[in-house]
Amino acid sequence: MTGTLTTSMTTIAEEDLEALARGAAVLGTGGGGDPYVGRLLAAQALREHGPVELVPPADLPDDASVFPVAMMGAPTVMVEKTPSTERIGDTVAALAEHLGVTPTHIACIEAGGVNSTFPLVAAAQLGLPVVDGDGMGRAFPELQMVLPTLSGIAATPMSIADEKGNVGVLTTVDNRSAEALARSLTITMGCAAIISNYAMTGAQAREGLVAGTLSLCTRIGRRLEEVRAEHGDAVAAVAGELGGRLLHTGKVVDVARRTATGFARGSAVVAGESGDLVLEFQNEHLVARRDGVVQVSTPDLIIVLDTDSGEPVTTEALRFGHRVSVVAAPADERWHSPGGIALVGPRYFGYETDPVRFDGAGAP
Amino acid sequence: MTGTLTTSMTTIAEEDLEALARGAAVLGTGGGGDPYVGRLLAAQALREHGPVELVPPADLPDDASVFPVAMMGAPTVMVEKTPSTERIGDTVAALAEHLGVTPTHIACIEAGGVNSTFPLVAAAQLGLPVVDGDGMGRAFPELQMVLPTLSGIAATPMSIADEKGNVGVLTTVDNRSAEALARSLTITMGCAAIISNYAMTGAQAREGLVAGTLSLCTRIGRRLEEVRAEHGDAVAAVAGELGGRLLHTGKVVDVARRTATGFARGSAVVAGESGDLVLEFQNEHLVARRDGVVQVSTPDLIIVLDTDSGEPVTTEALRFGHRVSVVAAPADERWHSPGGIALVGPRYFGYETDPVRFDGAGAP
Repeated sequence: MTGTLTTSMTTIAEEDLEALARGAAVLGTGGGGDPYVGRLLAAQALREHGPVELVPPADLPDDASVFPVAMMGAPTVMVEKTPSTERIGDTVAALAEHLGVTPTHIACIEAGGVNSTFPLVAAAQLGLPVVDGDGMGRAFPELQMVLPTLSGIAATPMSIADEKGNVGVLTTVDNRSAEALARSLTITMGCAAIISNYAMTGAQAREGLVAGTLSLCTRIGRRLEEVRAEHGDAVAAVAGELGGRLLHTGKVVDVARRTATGFARGSAVVAGESGDLVLEFQNEHLVARRDGVVQVSTPDLIIVLDTDSGEPVTTEALRFGHRVSVVAAPADERWHSPGGIALVGPRYFGYETDPVRFDGAGAP
Repeated sequence: MTGTLTTSMTTIAEEDLEALARGAAVLGTGGGGDPYVGRLLAAQALREHGPVELVPPADLPDDASVFPVAMMGAPTVMVEKTPSTERIGDTVAALAEHLGVTPTHIACIEAGGVNSTFPLVAAAQLGLPVVDGDGMGRAFPELQMVLPTLSGIAATPMSIADEKGNVGVLTTVDNRSAEALARSLTITMGCAAIISNYAMTGAQAREGLVAGTLSLCTRIGRRLEEVRAEHGDAVAAVAGELGGRLLHTGKVVDVARRTATGFARGSAVVAGESGDLVLEFQNEHLVARRDGVVQVSTPDLIIVLDTDSGEPVTTEALRFGHRVSVVAAPADERWHSPGGIALVGPRYFGYETDPVRFDGAGAP
């Protein structure tokens, strides 16, 4: 964090979206979908309905009814199949009706590109404030991978809808079953669906969410603009905002990817002066290795930025020849608990390594 | 039909189940699941809760709330993964709650092995009468393939549940979307799920269902027992009950099958004195060819019986060396309408042939 005092945001307006989406893509660690798509959708909604009120979790009444909203699916698909925003309200309404509860606030469940701006569409359409927070403090590929799971909040009842008007409401025995069933519906819906899940009270949201995500994203986005205008070091600025550090800089010399069971999986090699850094991703960058030794891994953040501009690079935008810098930054401390590691540690994703924490120290 | 007067049934008790399940397997035309599984489940429920009242569609009040209940999935899986009957009530309750309607009657949506007896479990558990009818007059592999679809009744809202306690409620834009989404959930649920769908009023049930299915099944089953006791021609007796005729008799010399996307698909060759008859199936027998010429096809019934005993043979029980007789019989006339053929004609299943109707005439 910068440590500098910033005026706290109280609304999000159309003119904040560029910075917000850019910062969200940084926290998206390569996943979360193309920030451009989310930004376009949100811009349209904010232009039509006006700015959305931003409420810090600390200000939520205990009995608030907080409804997270997100896109589920393969980011590679979302780029080509822009979701119909008309269905967002239906998705929230389906869950609200099932629960017999009237939503008072919309929230982000993920600090990823699409999923940081997408809930603003719901908030604008429904005339509700949005919570300045999210369920991860970063992006992760599966539905159960949220801090509310760690604090015992059920993913379901959840609603899921496609752009045609098909809607499902799922009630599951655990949050991993919610992932499995919602994923199969998402795939049948064309690999992109709108979901509303982890409905929670204000008290639960204060405990379960990461506070300040949307203002942090906006701050990162603004800082990037400022530093670029000053021809400063954009990568260092992003690392500074996140309490992270530069891990590696170089050129992408190899990218292997495939879209399997609704995810974009693969790996990339970044060749630099200090050798090759291998990035393994599954929607998000999850493991960074040098000479076979893991430098940092999930749950900590592995962020790929364009070296010149500091612009975040999504895993689907990684291309041979791209000059990139890799920044590592600490995740929310709750992710390092045994329950957190079981949920999002490297072994869950099939990587044969214990988690390697961001050490915070030294030069790359 | 026999044309003989039969005392109409007013209840189904445990002692009726053997005949009912056997007759249902005949109408199942090779699909609908192993009748033994459905019979076991129903026997347990009827022993515990007593006989279930059987109501002809004509006796349904206009404002009755009829809830069909069925198993969805690959019959080959149901044989090994017996569903938990405790979840049937939850499945009906989930749909009833969503609709805000109290069910007054349970119904069969399919005249197949499992799906003719499975609804009796729901009826017994919930203390409700069961409608003496079904939605097809036979078995078909997909959810939208029911006569209520032809009379404009929506498949959804529908509920779907697995044995673990996961429950979904789907609302879809059309009945084919219901099939697609429920199928993907069924596959994720382990290829077998409990569903309740096509909830309808008594007036709609009278129009949309085939009347008399459960008593017809029981009559066929009883007739088979009688004829066998008299060492009579069991195959001819079945054909007589259905207004059908013997198409072919011989020995199974080849069976090819695979379970793909939740279905049991394949073909079988029955070698006889009059040449080879090739049966093509997708859960149910759908096309019968001799020398490349289609003899009879879906929607009419192609029924494979053990030549000696007249016992119905499901597609998953077909084995090399099995001596079988193939009976053709007419489907409900509504299936031969243009809408019916579009829904369940041979081309829908990928067979390059116009439908060939059972001609009712002559020797094989």
